[in-house]
Amino acid sequence: MLPVTNLALNIPETQKPRVVIIGGGFGGINLAKKLRGKNFQVVMFDKQNYHGFWPLLYQVATAGLEPDAIAEPLRKLFGGDTYKDFYFRLVKVTSVNPETKTVTTLIGDISYDYLVIATGTKTNYFGNEQVKKFSFPLKKIPDALNLRSQMLQCFEQASMTPDPEMQQSLMNFVVVGGGPTGVELAGALAEMKRHVLPADYPGVDISKMNIYLVEGMNRLLPPMSEKSSEKTYKYLKELGVNIILGTLVESYDGEWAVLKNDKRIHTNTLIWAAGVAGALVDGLPPETIERGRILVNEFNQVLGYPDIFAIGDIAMMKTEEWPKGHPGVAQPAIQQGSLLGKNLVRLQENKPLEKFKYTDKGSLAIIGRNRAVADLPGKMHFGGFIAWAIWLFVHVMALVGFRNKLVVLSNWVYKFFTYENGTRLIIRPFVRKGDKIKQRFFDRFDAE
Amino acid sequence: MLPVTNLALNIPETQKPRVVIIGGGFGGINLAKKLRGKNFQVVMFDKQNYHGFWPLLYQVATAGLEPDAIAEPLRKLFGGDTYKDFYFRLVKVTSVNPETKTVTTLIGDISYDYLVIATGTKTNYFGNEQVKKFSFPLKKIPDALNLRSQMLQCFEQASMTPDPEMQQSLMNFVVVGGGPTGVELAGALAEMKRHVLPADYPGVDISKMNIYLVEGMNRLLPPMSEKSSEKTYKYLKELGVNIILGTLVESYDGEWAVLKNDKRIHTNTLIWAAGVAGALVDGLPPETIERGRILVNEFNQVLGYPDIFAIGDIAMMKTEEWPKGHPGVAQPAIQQGSLLGKNLVRLQENKPLEKFKYTDKGSLAIIGRNRAVADLPGKMHFGGFIAWAIWLFVHVMALVGFRNKLVVLSNWVYKFFTYENGTRLIIRPFVRKGDKIKQRFFDRFDAE
Repeated sequence: MLPVTNLALNIPETQKPRVVIIGGGFGGINLAKKLRGKNFQVVMFDKQNYHGFWPLLYQVATAGLEPDAIAEPLRKLFGGDTYKDFYFRLVKVTSVNPETKTVTTLIGDISYDYLVIATGTKTNYFGNEQVKKFSFPLKKIPDALNLRSQMLQCFEQASMTPDPEMQQSLMNFVVVGGGPTGVELAGALAEMKRHVLPADYPGVDISKMNIYLVEGMNRLLPPMSEKSSEKTYKYLKELGVNIILGTLVESYDGEWAVLKNDKRIHTNTLIWAAGVAGALVDGLPPETIERGRILVNEFNQVLGYPDIFAIGDIAMMKTEEWPKGHPGVAQPAIQQGSLLGKNLVRLQENKPLEKFKYTDKGSLAIIGRNRAVADLPGKMHFGGFIAWAIWLFVHVMALVGFRNKLVVLSNWVYKFFTYENGTRLIIRPFVRKGDKIKQRFFDRFDAE
Repeated sequence: MLPVTNLALNIPETQKPRVVIIGGGFGGINLAKKLRGKNFQVVMFDKQNYHGFWPLLYQVATAGLEPDAIAEPLRKLFGGDTYKDFYFRLVKVTSVNPETKTVTTLIGDISYDYLVIATGTKTNYFGNEQVKKFSFPLKKIPDALNLRSQMLQCFEQASMTPDPEMQQSLMNFVVVGGGPTGVELAGALAEMKRHVLPADYPGVDISKMNIYLVEGMNRLLPPMSEKSSEKTYKYLKELGVNIILGTLVESYDGEWAVLKNDKRIHTNTLIWAAGVAGALVDGLPPETIERGRILVNEFNQVLGYPDIFAIGDIAMMKTEEWPKGHPGVAQPAIQQGSLLGKNLVRLQENKPLEKFKYTDKGSLAIIGRNRAVADLPGKMHFGGFIAWAIWLFVHVMALVGFRNKLVVLSNWVYKFFTYENGTRLIIRPFVRKGDKIKQRFFDRFDAE
C-alpha cells in the first residue's frame, strides 16, 4: 500500500475524556446529540459525509426521491457553535486496538477514553462471489443511483431490440429477499409498471415486464406479524408481483438466475436484498463476535472491555425478550445511542449505568399507493390506507432535517396526485462489469 | 470496435414525412413541441435521457440543487398520448449522410425527410490536452456532481493536513473563464466561503480559502454591457473573489496553474469554464463548418442542403445585426426551434418559409445573494436586488416542469432565509486521474 502523505487526524489533545464514535448512522448521531454541551471531546469517523435515512433508499432507486431528500450532511448536523469540541473526520477506520486504547485510521492513530462502534451492516452475499459480482446491492446511495440507471437503461434498450428473448430479459427484475427492502422495492417497481412506464415507453409492451420477489422463508416480512405478512402477500399479488417463497437463489451469472427449485429466470437485473452482515472492524478478539455482530451487555459494553461500546445493528445484546439480539432496524440503534449518551455522562458522574430496555414502536412497510402494513405495539395491525398514512407520517417525522421533511413531503404529495416519479434521470449511465448488452452500447456514449 | 448485438432503432416505417432531431436541448425540445399533432413522424436522438436547464448547473456543483431540479426526463416531456408518432431513442449518433439522406447511430441507420442538428456545444480546451486531463469541466450533470464531491473532499482533507502548503492548495479554487458560468460559480463559491464553510469546518481557517477568477479579455461577462461588467467586477470583489483579467491559463499539471503573466497558483482544483465548441457530428462537408459551428441561412437550413437544418448553439447564422452568429445562450435556440417547427409545417403546406429574427430578451447573471446584473432590451441595466429578483423570476419561470419550479423555488427560499446549501453530499467520492492527494486516500474507502 502506498503511504498516505501529508494527512493526519489533526484532533487537538484535551483534558476532557475523549469519546470516539465510529459511524454516523442512527446510533452514532443520537449518541452524539446527547453529548452536546457535556464534558467530552467527541470524535466521529465515517466513510460518508452524511447521515442516511436508509428506510427510504428504495425510493432513490425507483426515481421517487433524490439523494438529498434522504441524507443530511454530518457536518451540518453537528456544525456551528452548538457542538463545541466535536470533530468529524471523513476517513476509514482500519482497526481498533483495545490494548493501547487507540483506533487506527488510514492516516494515523488516535487514543480514546471511550470507544463506540456504531458501524451498522453491509450487504451479505453469504459467500456467493458470483452473485456479488453480477447482482445489484441496495445498501448505499451510489447503489440506489446505479440501480435507477440500470432500470431506466433496461427500458431504453428494451425499446430498441428486435430480439424478444433479450427484451424479456431486460424487462425481468428479480428482487431477492422478502424483507422490508425487497418488499418495498418490488412494490415500487410494480407501481412504476402501472403508472409510469407505459406512458414513457409507448413502443414497448410493458405488460411483459415481470417483477419476481424471491424469499427463502415461507412468508414475506418474516419479522412482522403473520397478519401483516399475509396482507403484504395479497397487496403485492394485486400489484402483479410474482412471489416465490421458500426458495433461495443458487446462482446468477448476469444473464440467468437459477433458483434452488430449478426455476430459471432470464434477467439483466437481479437485486440482492437478501441479507446483511455486521460491518465489523478489525481488532476485537473472536470471542466478542457472534454471527458477525459484537456481543454486548445491557449497557452496550463489549464483553470484557468496559470502555468499548457497540450500538445498533453491529451490537448483539441477548436478552430474555430478544435472545437473538434486537431487530436490525432503526429503533434499537436510536434508543441505544441515546441511552449510551446518558450513560457516558453518568459514568463521569460516578453514577450507576442504566440498563437498556428496548421500546418496540412497531414495524411498518409500504407496498404501494394506499397499500401498507403496520404492526403497532399492543398487537394492533393495520393495512391499506390507514397503514399507508401511518407509514407516511412516521417516515416524514423521522427524517432528520427540516428541509428533508419538506422535500420528501412535497415529492410525495406530487407523486400521489400525478402518479409521476419525478426523477427518472440516468444521471451517470451504469454498466455493470460483464454486462455485454450494456457494455457495447453505453460505454461508447462518451467515446470522444 | 465490437459490434452492438441485438439492438436496432426499431422505428416503424410511415407515410408521414420523418423529422429526425439530434439533441434534446432548448432547440430540440421547442421544435418537437411545435410538431405535436402535426403530420410528421418525429424521431429524437440524445445521449442523455433528460433535458437539462444548464443555466443552473453551477448550483448543482455548489451543492445548492440536486440534479432533478434542473433536469426533466425527455420521455416525460414527450410521453403519453399527447405526442403520437414521437420516438425518443437514447443512442449516440455517429454520422449524418446527406447523400443517402440517412443518419447513422451506434445501432443502425435511419432515413429522414428532414434532419435537424441541435447538438449544442461541448467544452473547448483549445487543444490543451494537459488542461483537459487535470481540470474540472462544468458542462454536464456528472461534471457538476464531480466538482461538488471534489470541493467537499478538498475541505475534508484540508481539515486533516498538518502541511500548510498542501492545505492552501486544497483551499485554492481557480475558475477559468469570466463568462456566466465562471462568474456565477465564483460568486456561489464566495457565498459558501462566507455563510456555510466556517460552520462546517470549525477546525479550518476558512479565511485562507482563495477563489481566483481568470478571464482572457479585459472585462467580465464580455457579451453583456460595460455597465453590467463593471457591476459584476465590483460585486465579486465585495465577495472577496480574486479577479485576474486579460490573462490566460497556460498550463495546469494538477498541482500548479501557470498563467500567461507568469503568476503561479498552487491548486488542487482548476475549473475550466473558458469556452465551448460546437458538438459537431460527422458527415457534413467542411465548407458548411465555420469555427466549429454549422453555417445556416435565415431559415436555419444548412448551406447547400435544404432538408438539413441546424439550430441553437451549433448553428452559425450570420446576419447584419449578428455578423458572427447569435450568442450561445438559450434564447436563440428556443426561438429557432419554435420557428423551425412552424416552418416545417409551412413546408408541408407549400407555404414560403419565415425568416428567423432574433428577439433579444436581455441577459442576466447572478453573482450572489441579492447581487445580480441584468441587461434588458432598450438598454436598461439593473444591478443589486432588483436584478437578483428578475433573475430568480426568469429562471424559475423558464424551468421546464411544474415540479422543477416548485423544487427550485422552495430550495431557494430555504437557502435565502437560512444561508444553507442543502445538499453538501459527497454522493460518489471523486478522484481525478493523477490526483495523488485524493488517490491514496479516498480510493481506499471501499477497499473491501
